[in-house]
Amino acid sequence: MPNIKCVIEYNGLGFNGWQTQPGLRTVQEELHKAIEIVTRDKIREVIASGRTDSGVHAKAQVINFYLPRECDLQKLRRGVSSLLNGEVSLISAEVVPDQFNSRANAISKTYVYTLLYRDTPPTLERGFVWHMIYRLDLAKMQREAKLLEGQHDFTSFRGANCTAASTVRKIFESELIVELPHIYYRVRGEGFLKQMVRNIVGTLVQIGRGQQPKISSFEEILAARDRRVAGPTAPAHGLCLEKVEY
Amino acid sequence: MPNIKCVIEYNGLGFNGWQTQPGLRTVQEELHKAIEIVTRDKIREVIASGRTDSGVHAKAQVINFYLPRECDLQKLRRGVSSLLNGEVSLISAEVVPDQFNSRANAISKTYVYTLLYRDTPPTLERGFVWHMIYRLDLAKMQREAKLLEGQHDFTSFRGANCTAASTVRKIFESELIVELPHIYYRVRGEGFLKQMVRNIVGTLVQIGRGQQPKISSFEEILAARDRRVAGPTAPAHGLCLEKVEY
Repeated sequence: MPNIKCVIEYNGLGFNGWQTQPGLRTVQEELHKAIEIVTRDKIREVIASGRTDSGVHAKAQVINFYLPRECDLQKLRRGVSSLLNGEVSLISAEVVPDQFNSRANAISKTYVYTLLYRDTPPTLERGFVWHMIYRLDLAKMQREAKLLEGQHDFTSFRGANCTAASTVRKIFESELIVELPHIYYRVRGEGFLKQMVRNIVGTLVQIGRGQQPKISSFEEILAARDRRVAGPTAPAHGLCLEKVEY
Repeated sequence: MPNIKCVIEYNGLGFNGWQTQPGLRTVQEELHKAIEIVTRDKIREVIASGRTDSGVHAKAQVINFYLPRECDLQKLRRGVSSLLNGEVSLISAEVVPDQFNSRANAISKTYVYTLLYRDTPPTLERGFVWHMIYRLDLAKMQREAKLLEGQHDFTSFRGANCTAASTVRKIFESELIVELPHIYYRVRGEGFLKQMVRNIVGTLVQIGRGQQPKISSFEEILAARDRRVAGPTAPAHGLCLEKVEY
């Protein structure tokens, strides 16, 4: 039963997120079907480093799955990518020790959220950036982004139906990178709650707009432990899973 | 009659290139119509630094046109971009001296052609890269790309129905930038013949594949002054007009 680890890239646009759900088209389900078609074998489960929400993209998601027998990994990669043509690509594939688990063994994940900060719409990056037409206090946003580094209770940034047992997460890096007209929010953490990154970005934008004195700083928002004091959820298509470390 | 200069971005996918042609949807025609709708005035012609082929993108094409009277340039930019939502965006607009002509006064144009060099298809950059599955001799391609710098007769790289009077062009920079899995061919020149950049890229790839001893070097191909000795035309969607200098 070789344990296969793959790095995969996907365009979230056509999927209802990572996780298999009855009646919905998901990355996990489509990959599962494609792997079974190419290998002509039944497999149990395709495990990922973490779920991505509906519409979220991935440059380097990491998955693993057990095959009943050995197979040509290059043929597997090419065959599965070909079936999922232009939506999911298997960038690499390797046999790893049996005990490797892409979810349990992940040490950190890096997400990048991209804003296009100008008054006219994107034409080349449509579907990959959040078009931001409001004037933002970028220096303030950069200072605020840094405040999230460290270990915090992220209850205020937890998605509505998040089922995580603990809301405490450790964030290694949290920064706003300004390369106009692009603004990148880059965050590396040991793990994230459901919609956490998008809720952080939505709140960061509200802070940058200076519209809500109620939520003037991430310190207060974290301390409140109340989803209602934070800002709205940023659109999914601006978010991309960039890297998973083991 | 204010002369308006704009920097524009467009996604070439939905257009039959820049130039107005009867019965075809082109960037020039759609811009013309949108400007007349927004200004409620008739205009003569929207001039561009140069035509782009069907399917070619632009990050910073430069155009100019004369308006019969003054207008609010921010409203003009936003209005026209809004009408061409997600296909053409007017990044900047300014009033320039009467004699400024975006085509005649251009000193140089920079194009970038992007290859995605891996065995599985693009998912995030679909429509913006040429997927290259063949093994390429990148060092050789880098050396060859450099040979195009200087003034040459580009007859061998001229498109089928090119109507230019002279086939001699000066190339300031021509280089292959390797940042795997991406390969960028970046070329800055005083001007280009029809399909010249795409024919250069198509030939460069053939040289990199080492498949055609007939076209082993750009030196011989230039000297031959014969379109048949060069390689095929690379697909339009990998090409982007990056910059125009005045």
